[in-house]
Amino acid sequence: MAASITLYTAKICPYAHRVELALEEAKATYTKYPIDLQNKPSWYAPKVNPASKVPAIAYGGPPSPPEDPSPESEKIAESLVLIEFVNDLFPQAHLLPADPVLRAKARFFIEFSTNKLIAPYSAFQRTGASADDFLAGVVAVQELLPADGFAVGPYSLADVAVTPFIARAFVGLRNEIGAYDEGEGKKVLEALAAPRYARFHKYWADLQARPNFKATFDEPYVTEAFKKRFGGLRAQK
Amino acid sequence: MAASITLYTAKICPYAHRVELALEEAKATYTKYPIDLQNKPSWYAPKVNPASKVPAIAYGGPPSPPEDPSPESEKIAESLVLIEFVNDLFPQAHLLPADPVLRAKARFFIEFSTNKLIAPYSAFQRTGASADDFLAGVVAVQELLPADGFAVGPYSLADVAVTPFIARAFVGLRNEIGAYDEGEGKKVLEALAAPRYARFHKYWADLQARPNFKATFDEPYVTEAFKKRFGGLRAQK
Ligand SMILES: N[C@@H](CCC(=O)N[C@@H](CS)C(=O)NCC(=O)O)C(=O)O
Ligand SMILES: N[C@@H](CCC(=O)N[C@@H](CS)C(=O)NCC(=O)O)C(=O)O
Repeated sequence: MAASITLYTAKICPYAHRVELALEEAKATYTKYPIDLQNKPSWYAPKVNPASKVPAIAYGGPPSPPEDPSPESEKIAESLVLIEFVNDLFPQAHLLPADPVLRAKARFFIEFSTNKLIAPYSAFQRTGASADDFLAGVVAVQELLPADGFAVGPYSLADVAVTPFIARAFVGLRNEIGAYDEGEGKKVLEALAAPRYARFHKYWADLQARPNFKATFDEPYVTEAFKKRFGGLRAQK
Repeated sequence: MAASITLYTAKICPYAHRVELALEEAKATYTKYPIDLQNKPSWYAPKVNPASKVPAIAYGGPPSPPEDPSPESEKIAESLVLIEFVNDLFPQAHLLPADPVLRAKARFFIEFSTNKLIAPYSAFQRTGASADDFLAGVVAVQELLPADGFAVGPYSLADVAVTPFIARAFVGLRNEIGAYDEGEGKKVLEALAAPRYARFHKYWADLQARPNFKATFDEPYVTEAFKKRFGGLRAQK
Protein backbone atom coordinates (compact mmCIF):
# COMPACT_ATOMS: atom_id res chain seq x y z
CA MET A 1 0.00 0.00 0.00
CA ALA A 2 1.26 3.47 -0.89
CA ALA A 3 2.05 5.78 2.01
CA SER A 4 -0.84 8.10 2.86
CA ILE A 5 -0.81 11.80 2.09
CA THR A 6 -2.73 14.33 4.16
CA LEU A 7 -2.60 17.88 2.86
CA TYR A 8 -3.36 20.68 5.29
CA THR A 9 -4.62 23.49 3.15
CA ALA A 10 -6.80 26.60 2.87
CA LYS A 11 -8.69 27.69 -0.23
CA ILE A 12 -7.63 31.30 0.14
CA CYS A 13 -3.92 30.50 0.24
CA PRO A 14 -1.91 30.61 -3.00
CA TYR A 15 0.94 28.60 -1.49
CA ALA A 16 -1.37 25.79 -0.47
CA HIS A 17 -3.05 25.97 -3.88
CA ARG A 18 0.30 25.12 -5.50
CA VAL A 19 0.38 21.81 -3.70
CA GLU A 20 -3.22 21.00 -4.59
CA LEU A 21 -2.44 21.67 -8.25
CA ALA A 22 0.59 19.37 -8.12
CA LEU A 23 -1.29 16.57 -6.38
CA GLU A 24 -4.21 16.81 -8.81
CA GLU A 25 -1.87 16.84 -11.79
CA ALA A 26 -0.18 13.72 -10.43
CA LYS A 27 -3.60 12.10 -9.92
CA ALA A 28 -2.52 11.39 -6.36
CA THR A 29 -4.82 9.88 -3.78
CA TYR A 30 -4.78 12.21 -0.80
CA THR A 31 -6.84 13.63 2.03
CA LYS A 32 -7.46 17.35 1.97
CA TYR A 33 -7.84 18.84 5.42
CA PRO A 34 -8.95 22.49 5.49
CA ILE A 35 -7.36 24.75 8.09
CA ASP A 36 -9.29 27.89 9.05
CA LEU A 37 -6.50 30.46 9.04
CA GLN A 38 -8.58 32.90 11.09
CA ASN A 39 -9.05 30.29 13.75
CA LYS A 40 -6.32 27.69 13.60
CA PRO A 41 -6.81 24.52 15.63
CA SER A 42 -4.51 24.41 18.64
CA TRP A 43 -3.01 21.06 17.59
CA TYR A 44 -1.88 22.33 14.21
CA ALA A 45 1.46 23.95 15.15
CA PRO A 46 2.63 21.32 17.66
CA LYS A 47 1.48 18.30 15.63
CA VAL A 48 1.91 19.37 12.02
CA ASN A 49 3.79 22.56 11.25
CA PRO A 50 5.69 24.51 13.94
CA ALA A 51 5.59 27.55 11.62
CA SER A 52 1.80 27.32 11.90
CA LYS A 53 1.27 27.86 8.17
CA VAL A 54 -0.41 26.03 5.34
CA PRO A 55 0.46 24.14 3.22
CA ALA A 56 1.86 21.13 5.06
CA ILE A 57 1.75 17.42 4.34
CA ALA A 58 1.72 14.48 6.74
CA TYR A 59 3.15 11.55 4.84
CA GLY A 60 3.08 7.87 5.69
CA GLY A 61 2.93 6.29 9.12
CA PRO A 62 0.07 4.23 10.52
CA PRO A 63 -3.52 5.30 9.73
CA SER A 64 -4.48 8.26 11.92
CA PRO A 65 -7.00 11.11 11.83
CA PRO A 66 -5.76 14.40 10.32
CA GLU A 67 -6.42 16.12 13.67
CA ASP A 68 -4.06 13.71 15.39
CA PRO A 69 -1.49 12.58 12.86
CA SER A 70 0.84 9.81 13.92
CA PRO A 71 4.23 10.97 15.21
CA GLU A 72 5.60 8.35 12.80
CA SER A 73 4.37 10.22 9.75
CA GLU A 74 6.72 12.72 8.13
CA LYS A 75 5.59 16.34 8.39
CA ILE A 76 6.74 18.51 5.52
CA ALA A 77 6.10 22.21 4.91
CA GLU A 78 6.91 24.96 2.38
CA SER A 79 5.04 25.02 -0.90
CA LEU A 80 8.06 24.84 -3.21
CA VAL A 81 9.52 21.98 -1.22
CA LEU A 82 6.17 20.22 -1.37
CA ILE A 83 5.65 20.51 -5.11
CA GLU A 84 9.13 19.05 -5.68
CA PHE A 85 8.15 16.33 -3.21
CA VAL A 86 5.03 15.54 -5.24
CA ASN A 87 7.19 15.36 -8.34
CA ASP A 88 9.60 12.99 -6.60
CA LEU A 89 6.75 10.80 -5.33
CA PHE A 90 5.04 10.61 -8.73
CA PRO A 91 7.78 10.60 -11.37
CA GLN A 92 5.36 9.16 -13.93
CA ALA A 93 3.41 12.45 -13.86
CA HIS A 94 6.43 14.28 -15.31
CA LEU A 95 5.84 17.43 -13.28
CA LEU A 96 9.37 18.32 -14.33
CA PRO A 97 10.71 17.43 -17.77
CA ALA A 98 13.52 14.85 -17.95
CA ASP A 99 16.01 17.20 -19.61
CA PRO A 100 18.24 18.91 -16.98
CA VAL A 101 18.21 22.18 -18.95
CA LEU A 102 14.42 22.29 -19.05
CA ARG A 103 14.27 21.40 -15.37
CA ALA A 104 16.58 24.33 -14.65
CA LYS A 105 14.42 26.60 -16.79
CA ALA A 106 11.33 25.53 -14.88
CA ARG A 107 12.99 26.27 -11.54
CA PHE A 108 14.34 29.56 -12.85
CA PHE A 109 10.85 30.51 -14.03
CA ILE A 110 9.57 30.07 -10.47
CA GLU A 111 12.32 32.25 -8.99
CA PHE A 112 11.91 34.87 -11.71
CA SER A 113 8.13 35.12 -11.59
CA THR A 114 8.24 35.32 -7.79
CA ASN A 115 10.47 38.39 -7.99
CA LYS A 116 9.09 40.05 -11.10
CA LEU A 117 5.38 39.24 -10.99
CA ILE A 118 4.22 38.01 -7.60
CA ALA A 119 6.19 40.44 -5.41
CA PRO A 120 5.22 43.61 -7.33
CA TYR A 121 1.58 42.55 -7.49
CA SER A 122 1.61 41.95 -3.78
CA ALA A 123 3.14 45.41 -3.16
CA PHE A 124 0.42 46.96 -5.34
CA GLN A 125 -2.33 45.15 -3.46
CA ARG A 126 -0.96 45.48 0.04
CA THR A 127 0.50 48.97 -0.02
CA GLY A 128 -1.00 50.66 -3.05
CA ALA A 129 2.44 50.88 -4.71
CA SER A 130 2.38 51.71 -8.41
CA ALA A 131 1.25 48.86 -10.68
CA ASP A 132 4.02 49.67 -13.18
CA ASP A 133 6.41 47.09 -11.78
CA PHE A 134 3.71 44.45 -11.98
CA LEU A 135 2.94 45.32 -15.61
CA ALA A 136 6.67 45.27 -16.42
CA GLY A 137 6.83 41.89 -14.70
CA VAL A 138 4.05 40.55 -16.92
CA VAL A 139 6.14 41.53 -19.94
CA ALA A 140 9.31 40.04 -18.44
CA VAL A 141 7.60 36.74 -17.63
CA GLN A 142 6.01 36.71 -21.06
CA GLU A 143 9.45 36.95 -22.62
CA LEU A 144 10.43 33.71 -20.91
CA LEU A 145 7.44 31.88 -22.36
CA PRO A 146 7.95 29.80 -25.49
CA ALA A 147 5.81 30.67 -28.54
CA ASP A 148 3.36 27.93 -27.56
CA GLY A 149 2.60 25.84 -24.54
CA PHE A 150 3.45 26.34 -20.91
CA ALA A 151 6.37 27.98 -19.11
CA VAL A 152 8.94 25.55 -20.45
CA GLY A 153 6.79 23.86 -23.08
CA PRO A 154 5.17 20.87 -21.39
CA TYR A 155 3.13 21.58 -18.25
CA SER A 156 5.45 21.62 -15.22
CA LEU A 157 6.04 22.78 -11.67
CA ALA A 158 6.79 26.22 -13.10
CA ASP A 159 3.12 26.52 -14.07
CA VAL A 160 1.97 24.98 -10.82
CA ALA A 161 3.91 27.59 -8.84
CA VAL A 162 2.65 30.67 -10.63
CA THR A 163 -0.99 29.75 -11.32
CA PRO A 164 -2.41 30.45 -7.83
CA PHE A 165 -0.93 33.93 -7.80
CA ILE A 166 -2.19 34.89 -11.25
CA ALA A 167 -5.63 33.59 -10.32
CA ARG A 168 -5.71 35.67 -7.14
CA ALA A 169 -4.33 38.74 -8.90
CA PHE A 170 -7.27 38.70 -11.30
CA VAL A 171 -9.71 38.24 -8.43
CA GLY A 172 -8.17 41.23 -6.71
CA LEU A 173 -8.12 43.44 -9.79
CA ARG A 174 -11.67 42.62 -10.90
CA ASN A 175 -13.02 43.33 -7.47
CA GLU A 176 -10.79 46.33 -6.64
CA ILE A 177 -9.49 44.56 -3.55
CA GLY A 178 -6.40 46.25 -2.20
CA ALA A 179 -4.84 49.35 -0.69
CA TYR A 180 -4.78 51.16 -4.04
CA ASP A 181 -7.42 53.75 -4.98
CA GLU A 182 -10.79 52.43 -6.13
CA GLY A 183 -10.74 52.21 -9.94
CA GLU A 184 -7.01 51.36 -10.12
CA GLY A 185 -7.84 47.67 -10.50
CA LYS A 186 -9.95 48.42 -13.56
CA LYS A 187 -7.14 50.56 -15.00
CA VAL A 188 -4.63 47.76 -14.63
CA LEU A 189 -7.04 45.35 -16.34
CA GLU A 190 -7.51 47.85 -19.17
CA ALA A 191 -3.74 48.24 -19.53
CA LEU A 192 -3.39 44.46 -19.62
CA ALA A 193 -5.87 44.28 -22.51
CA ALA A 194 -3.25 45.83 -24.83
CA PRO A 195 -1.93 43.55 -27.59
CA ARG A 196 1.53 43.50 -26.06
CA TYR A 197 0.20 41.33 -23.24
CA ALA A 198 -1.46 38.83 -25.58
CA ARG A 199 0.98 35.99 -24.90
CA PHE A 200 0.36 36.34 -21.18
CA HIS A 201 -3.42 36.12 -21.67
CA LYS A 202 -3.01 33.02 -23.82
CA TYR A 203 -0.84 31.49 -21.09
CA TRP A 204 -3.41 32.33 -18.45
CA ALA A 205 -6.20 30.86 -20.58
CA ASP A 206 -4.18 27.65 -20.96
CA LEU A 207 -3.60 27.47 -17.21
CA GLN A 208 -7.30 27.96 -16.48
CA ALA A 209 -8.31 25.28 -18.98
CA ARG A 210 -6.18 22.69 -17.20
CA PRO A 211 -8.28 20.13 -15.25
CA ASN A 212 -6.13 20.56 -12.14
CA PHE A 213 -7.10 24.25 -12.02
CA LYS A 214 -10.81 23.58 -12.39
CA ALA A 215 -10.57 20.97 -9.64
CA THR A 216 -8.86 23.29 -7.17
CA PHE A 217 -9.90 26.92 -7.63
CA ASP A 218 -13.11 28.03 -5.97
CA GLU A 219 -13.39 31.54 -7.35
CA PRO A 220 -16.57 32.63 -5.53
CA TYR A 221 -15.09 31.47 -2.25
CA VAL A 222 -11.73 33.15 -2.83
CA THR A 223 -13.48 36.35 -3.91
CA GLU A 224 -15.51 36.54 -0.72
CA ALA A 225 -12.55 35.57 1.45
CA PHE A 226 -10.38 38.20 -0.23
CA LYS A 227 -13.02 40.87 0.34
CA LYS A 228 -13.15 40.00 4.01
CA ARG A 229 -9.40 39.68 4.43
CA PHE A 230 -8.07 42.52 2.27
CA GLY A 231 -11.16 44.64 1.70
CA GLY A 232 -10.19 46.92 4.56
CA LEU A 233 -6.71 47.75 3.24
CA ARG A 234 -7.84 50.84 1.34
CA ALA A 235 -9.52 52.42 4.34
CA GLN A 236 -6.48 51.72 6.54
CA LYS A 237 -4.06 53.47 4.22
CA MET B 1 31.61 14.38 -25.64
CA ALA B 2 29.85 15.81 -22.62
CA ALA B 3 28.44 19.32 -22.99
CA SER B 4 30.81 21.99 -21.70
CA ILE B 5 30.17 23.92 -18.48
CA THR B 6 31.48 27.45 -17.95
CA LEU B 7 30.84 28.86 -14.50
CA TYR B 8 30.91 32.63 -14.09
CA THR B 9 31.82 33.17 -10.49
CA ALA B 10 33.45 35.44 -7.89
CA LYS B 11 35.35 34.25 -4.83
CA ILE B 12 33.64 36.76 -2.57
CA CYS B 13 30.13 35.65 -3.48
CA PRO B 14 28.40 33.03 -1.33
CA TYR B 15 25.82 32.29 -4.03
CA ALA B 16 28.52 31.53 -6.60
CA HIS B 17 30.37 29.48 -3.98
CA ARG B 18 27.36 27.18 -3.73
CA VAL B 19 27.71 26.23 -7.36
CA GLU B 20 31.47 25.67 -7.07
CA LEU B 21 30.85 23.34 -4.13
CA ALA B 22 28.26 21.37 -6.10
CA LEU B 23 30.48 21.08 -9.19
CA GLU B 24 33.48 19.97 -7.11
CA GLU B 25 31.41 17.45 -5.20
CA ALA B 26 30.18 16.04 -8.52
CA LYS B 27 33.78 15.92 -9.81
CA ALA B 28 32.57 17.84 -12.84
CA THR B 29 34.90 19.10 -15.54
CA TYR B 30 34.23 22.80 -15.91
CA THR B 31 35.79 26.15 -16.67
CA LYS B 32 35.76 28.70 -13.89
CA TYR B 33 35.62 32.26 -15.17
CA PRO B 34 36.08 34.97 -12.50
CA ILE B 35 33.92 38.07 -12.76
CA ASP B 36 35.20 41.19 -11.02
CA LEU B 37 32.02 42.43 -9.37
CA GLN B 38 33.49 45.90 -8.86
CA ASN B 39 34.23 46.17 -12.55
CA LYS B 40 31.98 43.84 -14.50
CA PRO B 41 32.86 43.25 -18.15
CA SER B 42 30.42 44.95 -20.49
CA TRP B 43 29.61 41.70 -22.32
CA TYR B 44 28.50 39.91 -19.15
CA ALA B 45 24.89 41.09 -18.87
CA PRO B 46 24.02 40.94 -22.58
CA LYS B 47 25.80 37.65 -23.29
CA VAL B 48 25.46 35.68 -20.05
CA ASN B 49 23.11 36.94 -17.36
CA PRO B 50 20.71 39.85 -17.95
CA ALA B 51 20.46 40.23 -14.17
CA SER B 52 24.21 40.94 -14.22
CA LYS B 53 24.89 38.71 -11.24
CA VAL B 54 27.07 35.73 -10.48
CA PRO B 55 26.72 32.79 -10.46
CA ALA B 56 25.73 31.84 -14.00
CA ILE B 57 26.52 28.86 -16.18
CA ALA B 58 26.89 28.63 -19.95
CA TYR B 59 26.13 25.04 -20.85
CA GLY B 60 26.78 23.23 -24.11
CA GLY B 61 26.94 24.66 -27.60
CA PRO B 62 30.01 24.78 -29.83
CA PRO B 63 33.40 25.56 -28.24
CA SER B 64 33.68 29.27 -27.55
CA PRO B 65 35.65 31.54 -25.23
CA PRO B 66 33.99 32.47 -21.90
CA GLU B 67 34.08 36.14 -22.92
CA ASP B 68 32.06 35.37 -26.02
CA PRO B 69 29.92 32.33 -25.27
CA SER B 70 28.03 30.84 -28.19
CA PRO B 71 24.40 31.96 -28.49
CA GLU B 72 23.70 28.24 -28.83
CA SER B 73 24.80 27.49 -25.29
CA GLU B 74 22.19 27.60 -22.54
CA LYS B 75 22.64 30.40 -20.04
CA ILE B 76 21.35 29.58 -16.57
CA ALA B 77 21.38 31.73 -13.44
CA GLU B 78 20.31 31.61 -9.77
CA SER B 79 22.37 29.60 -7.33
CA LEU B 80 19.62 27.30 -6.08
CA VAL B 81 18.53 26.56 -9.63
CA LEU B 82 22.14 25.84 -10.55
CA ILE B 83 22.87 23.44 -7.73
CA GLU B 84 19.76 21.45 -8.65
CA PHE B 85 21.01 21.57 -12.25
CA VAL B 86 24.36 20.11 -11.18
CA ASN B 87 22.50 17.38 -9.32
CA ASP B 88 20.42 16.64 -12.43
CA LEU B 89 23.51 16.57 -14.67
CA PHE B 90 25.47 14.29 -12.34
CA PRO B 91 22.98 11.91 -10.73
CA GLN B 92 25.81 9.51 -9.84
CA ALA B 93 27.13 12.11 -7.36
CA HIS B 94 23.95 11.76 -5.27
CA LEU B 95 23.83 15.43 -4.35
CA LEU B 96 20.30 14.67 -3.24
CA PRO B 97 19.38 11.35 -1.61
CA ALA B 98 17.10 9.03 -3.56
CA ASP B 99 14.37 8.96 -0.91
CA PRO B 100 11.68 11.60 -1.65
CA VAL B 101 11.28 12.39 2.06
CA LEU B 102 15.00 13.05 2.50
CA ARG B 103 15.03 15.14 -0.67
CA ALA B 104 12.20 17.21 0.76
CA LYS B 105 14.08 17.56 4.05
CA ALA B 106 17.17 18.76 2.19
CA ARG B 107 15.16 21.38 0.31
CA PHE B 108 13.37 22.40 3.48
CA PHE B 109 16.71 22.80 5.24
CA ILE B 110 17.77 25.29 2.58
CA GLU B 111 14.59 27.33 2.93
CA PHE B 112 14.74 27.19 6.71
CA SER B 113 18.40 28.11 7.09
CA THR B 114 17.97 30.97 4.62
CA ASN B 115 15.26 32.49 6.81
CA LYS B 116 16.56 31.60 10.25
CA LEU B 117 20.34 31.78 9.87
CA ILE B 118 21.44 33.62 6.74
CA ALA B 119 18.92 36.46 6.85
CA PRO B 120 19.49 37.38 10.53
CA TYR B 121 23.27 37.18 10.15
CA SER B 122 23.05 39.45 7.16
CA ALA B 123 20.92 41.95 9.13
CA PHE B 124 23.47 41.89 11.94
CA GLN B 125 26.35 42.51 9.54
CA ARG B 126 24.69 45.03 7.25
CA THR B 127 22.66 47.06 9.73
CA GLY B 128 24.08 46.26 13.14
CA ALA B 129 20.79 44.63 14.19
CA SER B 130 20.97 42.50 17.33
CA ALA B 131 22.74 39.16 16.92
CA ASP B 132 20.07 37.43 19.02
CA ASP B 133 18.05 36.29 16.02
CA PHE B 134 21.17 34.85 14.45
CA LEU B 135 22.04 32.94 17.63
CA ALA B 136 18.46 31.69 17.86
CA GLY B 137 18.76 30.63 14.22
CA VAL B 138 21.88 28.60 14.99
CA VAL B 139 19.88 26.73 17.63
CA ALA B 140 16.93 26.25 15.29
CA VAL B 141 19.10 24.92 12.47
CA GLN B 142 20.92 22.70 14.93
CA GLU B 143 17.62 21.15 15.92
CA LEU B 144 17.10 20.03 12.33
CA LEU B 145 20.46 18.27 12.23
CA PRO B 146 20.57 14.54 12.85
CA ALA B 147 22.75 13.30 15.72
CA ASP B 148 25.55 12.60 13.25
CA GLY B 149 26.43 13.52 9.73
CA PHE B 150 25.21 16.31 7.51
CA ALA B 151 21.93 18.20 7.24
CA VAL B 152 19.92 15.16 6.21
CA GLY B 153 22.54 12.50 6.98
CA PRO B 154 24.52 12.01 3.77
CA TYR B 155 26.15 15.11 2.28
CA SER B 156 23.64 16.92 0.05
CA LEU B 157 22.58 20.15 -1.60
CA ALA B 158 21.37 21.28 1.81
CA ASP B 159 24.99 21.44 2.98
CA VAL B 160 26.13 22.95 -0.30
CA ALA B 161 23.64 25.78 0.07
CA VAL B 162 24.47 26.77 3.62
CA THR B 163 28.27 26.29 3.72
CA PRO B 164 29.28 29.51 1.92
CA PHE B 165 27.21 31.62 4.30
CA ILE B 166 28.55 30.00 7.46
CA ALA B 167 32.09 30.39 6.14
CA ARG B 168 31.57 34.08 5.46
CA ALA B 169 29.82 34.65 8.79
CA PHE B 170 32.90 33.38 10.64
CA VAL B 171 35.17 35.57 8.49
CA GLY B 172 33.02 38.54 9.36
CA LEU B 173 32.81 37.79 13.08
CA ARG B 174 36.51 37.03 13.52
CA ASN B 175 37.48 40.26 11.78
CA GLU B 176 34.72 42.46 13.22
CA ILE B 177 33.50 43.29 9.71
CA GLY B 178 30.07 44.85 9.79
CA ALA B 179 27.90 47.76 10.86
CA TYR B 180 27.80 46.54 14.48
CA ASP B 181 30.02 48.04 17.18
CA GLU B 182 33.64 46.90 17.26
CA GLY B 183 33.90 43.99 19.70
CA GLU B 184 30.41 42.66 18.96
CA GLY B 185 31.88 40.06 16.60
CA LYS B 186 34.04 38.71 19.40
CA LYS B 187 31.02 38.64 21.74
CA VAL B 188 29.01 36.59 19.28
CA LEU B 189 31.92 34.15 18.89
CA GLU B 190 32.16 33.85 22.67
CA ALA B 191 28.43 33.21 22.93
CA LEU B 192 28.73 30.56 20.22
CA ALA B 193 31.40 28.78 22.27
CA ALA B 194 28.75 27.70 24.80
CA PRO B 195 28.06 23.96 24.95
CA ARG B 196 24.53 24.43 23.60
CA TYR B 197 26.00 25.23 20.19
CA ALA B 198 28.25 22.15 20.12
CA ARG B 199 26.28 20.34 17.45
CA PHE B 200 26.56 23.36 15.16
CA HIS B 201 30.33 23.50 15.61
CA LYS B 202 30.62 19.80 14.81
CA TYR B 203 28.55 20.37 11.68
CA TRP B 204 30.73 23.29 10.65
CA ALA B 205 33.91 21.25 11.27
CA ASP B 206 32.51 18.48 9.06
CA LEU B 207 31.66 20.97 6.31
CA GLN B 208 35.16 22.46 6.43
CA ALA B 209 36.80 19.04 6.30
CA ARG B 210 35.03 18.22 3.06
CA PRO B 211 37.38 18.27 0.03
CA ASN B 212 34.97 20.43 -1.97
CA PHE B 213 35.27 23.14 0.67
CA LYS B 214 39.06 23.08 0.72
CA ALA B 215 39.07 23.29 -3.07
CA THR B 216 36.80 26.32 -3.24
CA PHE B 217 37.25 28.60 -0.22
CA ASP B 218 40.08 31.10 -0.32
CA GLU B 219 39.85 32.50 3.19
CA PRO B 220 42.66 35.09 2.96
CA TYR B 221 41.15 36.43 -0.26
CA VAL B 222 37.61 36.56 1.11
CA THR B 223 38.85 38.23 4.31
CA GLU B 224 40.57 41.01 2.39
CA ALA B 225 37.68 41.41 -0.02
CA PHE B 226 35.21 41.58 2.90
CA LYS B 227 37.30 44.24 4.61
CA LYS B 228 37.31 46.35 1.46
CA ARG B 229 33.65 45.76 0.69
CA PHE B 230 32.02 45.88 4.12
CA GLY B 231 34.75 47.42 6.29
CA GLY B 232 33.17 50.85 5.88
CA LEU B 233 29.74 49.85 7.15
CA ARG B 234 30.46 50.74 10.77
CA ALA B 235 31.60 54.26 9.97
CA GLN B 236 28.57 54.84 7.74
CA LYS B 237 26.09 53.94 10.41
N1 LIG C 1 6.69 30.16 2.43
C1 LIG C 1 5.45 29.45 2.74
C2 LIG C 1 4.35 30.46 2.90
C3 LIG C 1 3.04 29.85 3.37
C4 LIG C 1 2.09 30.91 3.93
O1 LIG C 1 2.46 32.09 4.09
N2 LIG C 1 0.83 30.52 4.23
C5 LIG C 1 -0.08 31.43 4.85
C6 LIG C 1 -1.44 31.47 4.18
S1 LIG C 1 -1.33 31.97 2.48
C7 LIG C 1 -0.31 31.00 6.28
O2 LIG C 1 -0.58 29.84 6.55
N3 LIG C 1 -0.16 31.94 7.21
C8 LIG C 1 -0.34 31.70 8.60
C9 LIG C 1 -1.58 32.36 9.09
O3 LIG C 1 -2.31 32.94 8.27
O4 LIG C 1 -1.80 32.27 10.29
C10 LIG C 1 5.15 28.48 1.62
O5 LIG C 1 5.63 28.70 0.49
O6 LIG C 1 4.47 27.46 1.87
N1 LIG D 1 19.62 35.18 -6.04
C1 LIG D 1 20.93 35.15 -6.64
C2 LIG D 1 21.84 36.14 -5.95
C3 LIG D 1 23.19 36.30 -6.63
C4 LIG D 1 23.89 37.56 -6.16
O1 LIG D 1 23.30 38.40 -5.47
N2 LIG D 1 25.16 37.72 -6.57
C5 LIG D 1 25.87 38.95 -6.26
C6 LIG D 1 27.24 38.73 -5.69
S1 LIG D 1 27.18 37.82 -4.16
C7 LIG D 1 26.05 39.71 -7.53
O2 LIG D 1 26.51 39.20 -8.54
N3 LIG D 1 25.66 41.00 -7.49
C8 LIG D 1 25.79 41.88 -8.60
C9 LIG D 1 26.86 42.88 -8.39
O3 LIG D 1 27.56 42.82 -7.38
O4 LIG D 1 27.01 43.73 -9.27
C10 LIG D 1 21.50 33.73 -6.56
O5 LIG D 1 21.05 32.98 -5.67
O6 LIG D 1 22.31 33.34 -7.42
